[in-house]
Amino acid sequence: MDWENSLKIDCETVARRLEDFIRDELAAAGFTRLVAGLSGGIDSAVSCALAVRAIGPENVTALIMPYRSSNPANVSDAEDLAAQLGISAFTVDITPMVDAFYAERPDADQVRRGNMMARQRMAVLYDSSQQLGALVLGTGNKTEAMLGYTTMYGDNACALNPLADLLKTQVRQLAAFLGIPEAIIDKAPSADLWAGQTDEEELGLTYALADRILHGLCHLRLDSEALTEKPYGLPADAVGKVARLIRAMRFKRGLPAAARITDGPYEPDV
Amino acid sequence: MDWENSLKIDCETVARRLEDFIRDELAAAGFTRLVAGLSGGIDSAVSCALAVRAIGPENVTALIMPYRSSNPANVSDAEDLAAQLGISAFTVDITPMVDAFYAERPDADQVRRGNMMARQRMAVLYDSSQQLGALVLGTGNKTEAMLGYTTMYGDNACALNPLADLLKTQVRQLAAFLGIPEAIIDKAPSADLWAGQTDEEELGLTYALADRILHGLCHLRLDSEALTEKPYGLPADAVGKVARLIRAMRFKRGLPAAARITDGPYEPDV
Repeated sequence: MDWENSLKIDCETVARRLEDFIRDELAAAGFTRLVAGLSGGIDSAVSCALAVRAIGPENVTALIMPYRSSNPANVSDAEDLAAQLGISAFTVDITPMVDAFYAERPDADQVRRGNMMARQRMAVLYDSSQQLGALVLGTGNKTEAMLGYTTMYGDNACALNPLADLLKTQVRQLAAFLGIPEAIIDKAPSADLWAGQTDEEELGLTYALADRILHGLCHLRLDSEALTEKPYGLPADAVGKVARLIRAMRFKRGLPAAARITDGPYEPDV
Repeated sequence: MDWENSLKIDCETVARRLEDFIRDELAAAGFTRLVAGLSGGIDSAVSCALAVRAIGPENVTALIMPYRSSNPANVSDAEDLAAQLGISAFTVDITPMVDAFYAERPDADQVRRGNMMARQRMAVLYDSSQQLGALVLGTGNKTEAMLGYTTMYGDNACALNPLADLLKTQVRQLAAFLGIPEAIIDKAPSADLWAGQTDEEELGLTYALADRILHGLCHLRLDSEALTEKPYGLPADAVGKVARLIRAMRFKRGLPAAARITDGPYEPDV
């Protein structure tokens, strides 16, 4: 099985399609502008670059939202990218908001703090969204959505997400096509919630392997067992882990469970 | 048209059904505990009371999350209710988190500040959810969901919502049935985001009228024009306004727009 080829996207066609998506969704909502968080990572870089191609740099605003433990290289990479794209970028330090909460909770672990940071960034983005009359651009890829490697109501919160159907490997292809700087493409993927964090270590899976499994399950519509057999030959433990995560994290991709006491559709036809 | 009668629910049946919903959803998610924000208002009171009936007071934790401008009567009403329900209640002042952000943004208007407060409460609830191993209980009713009188990723964020299909008028019926204190039932509904705010003034609609219109559109499946004619006879301007809000605020009840580049269902069948 030639995984690399199977995962390859036609970047020109995909970019055009995602630019159309951005334009169409904005128009349908009656907006002309977007605001996006730029982390210095590859996903937000690609999402912003697509937005700039779709609606022009003058209609895209970037927010760079470091916490005090964030890697300064990520901030400067984000600034460099904003300059390259020709978009306005503002830095909002989320440290005061996060620390105001944990000052009295010194025992809170890294995961709680990381989720809080993601939610503070969401709150800042939505505040700007309102101030600027702009919709919030999503930056989450399909790999992290499927594995649940996101914070509910945090980094997965947005009005529209052009990357929702792209695996991490495919975001990388698009990044090269869009001319994203190598400093951003080449760094180890990290949520940057604490020093030294890398996605792959935390997930216990490489993206290369996770994406093969996800491509098999999501796009080739194969079942887990088939993926472990010829011609696919993926390791059973990793396939099992990905399948379990897909199920366990489904709640993050859906709406809250809503009790019903009436029959028929919830949305009236008005 | 006897609106009062048409909007009447069988409280005993509805309460039992919503308690089952809470138990079933918790079990399906593999949890045994709930955490909920108690505002001192009727919705969170009813939602918490249902949760206590469903899983016992020892499994429900309340967070009372005032901002410095919040009405102190709401805090004490929330405390009294928690005591009456026999649940643990903790007060978390969100003022430091909100003010840390707006200190450098003195010109931010009340609406932005109100949304920020709602999102800070969500962030605090989800932090506790993780700390306690508890799911977040929703407290939003159908009237506010339909009119979009909620903050995205703020007060509408939860894991499960027992009130999702109850109009405000029906929450009031259930409140009386569940023995919620009169101090809570009788106060003017308010998001309490600024002094003197009332829902009905902000919406420009009374709940009595909004609920008749919503009942007609959502439950009786009538169209707007029919509602203005006999035997319904509701005012055309209010019906038009409600219909417009339902359409304009639909995005708050759905998932973000997600671009697709593959065919078939997004969720794999694993």
